[in-house]
Amino acid sequence: MEINAAQVKELRETTGAGIMDCKQALQEAGGETDKAMRILREKGLAGAQKKAGRTAADGVIDSYIHLNNRIGVLLEVNCETDFVARNEDFRAMVHDIAMHIAASKPLFVSSEEVPQEVLAEEKEINRSRALKEGKPENVVDKIVEGRMKKYYEEVCLLDQPFVKDPDITIGELVKRTIAAVGENVVVRRFARFQVGESAGE
Amino acid sequence: MEINAAQVKELRETTGAGIMDCKQALQEAGGETDKAMRILREKGLAGAQKKAGRTAADGVIDSYIHLNNRIGVLLEVNCETDFVARNEDFRAMVHDIAMHIAASKPLFVSSEEVPQEVLAEEKEINRSRALKEGKPENVVDKIVEGRMKKYYEEVCLLDQPFVKDPDITIGELVKRTIAAVGENVVVRRFARFQVGESAGE
Repeated sequence: MEINAAQVKELRETTGAGIMDCKQALQEAGGETDKAMRILREKGLAGAQKKAGRTAADGVIDSYIHLNNRIGVLLEVNCETDFVARNEDFRAMVHDIAMHIAASKPLFVSSEEVPQEVLAEEKEINRSRALKEGKPENVVDKIVEGRMKKYYEEVCLLDQPFVKDPDITIGELVKRTIAAVGENVVVRRFARFQVGESAGE
Repeated sequence: MEINAAQVKELRETTGAGIMDCKQALQEAGGETDKAMRILREKGLAGAQKKAGRTAADGVIDSYIHLNNRIGVLLEVNCETDFVARNEDFRAMVHDIAMHIAASKPLFVSSEEVPQEVLAEEKEINRSRALKEGKPENVVDKIVEGRMKKYYEEVCLLDQPFVKDPDITIGELVKRTIAAVGENVVVRRFARFQVGESAGE
């Protein structure tokens, strides 16, 4: 059956589960939100959001070196305990994210990290572009909003589609791991170096 | 025989060779600068300085992960050609430097990278300290200069003593590699992450 985007959005906000998980749960539940929520809880995919506030002070540093040492990534992902830091699935996720960063070149971990001046410039560019394209003033804001979402998907790690499974974002991959390991997991920071790129890139 | 610091300094500036190499060459030369310079040239240790101006656009990215993934280093070292980038000795030096960074926690590649405000604050602290210790005004500048040198040795990678051979600095290790491979080598940048350290550390 067809599930509408508003339902998926609502379920995501309530449960903290990923888009595709919510969509699938709603389909299984015949479109009933309460039933979908129970399905997600049974799968261990709901409840992740509540854990996202807890301190994540343990974790691992991982690296990924690519193309005969011409690209390199260093990544810190935090969790709450040494037990999870040593967990194989957790470490596999961390390594997948490091590999993803090498391929997808994010500039920031999340949209909150994008500096105000970069954001303002990007919005201005999209506003001018929309106006030049002859869009009416009253829809320009909506168009700019849509293009900013696209911009985040391009430059923010958590909003990027995961290279190994483009149906989910890295943010959703992290949420699945939170649900699986049962404690908060936070992508803290990364560095990505490429030989020959100019400073600040 | 005893070699004085001024002689070593002069020879270093002329040849670009490291402190210990210059000192040893001067000892072998019985204190004669011209002879010492010839000794350095014969060893392939002089002439490095001249090469240090050339473009270093090739290179490698390397990483070093330590303490069960609790410390990680990402490092870019540039050279001029793909030939040197694939050279085993060059790569061994790069890996040694990555390991050194994990152990010695530098904050900057070189003294030129220390931000002006950090430098000004550090100088002010050392000046106040010297005055409080009751040092006369006319020697305070010299004392501050000496303590700034110590500060650089603590926080600047190129000024730090190499952990695997504390008789030379990382800067001297790089110069030796320049002399050995015959082209310019530049430590471009590094990142060092440690689990649990607070932001900005």
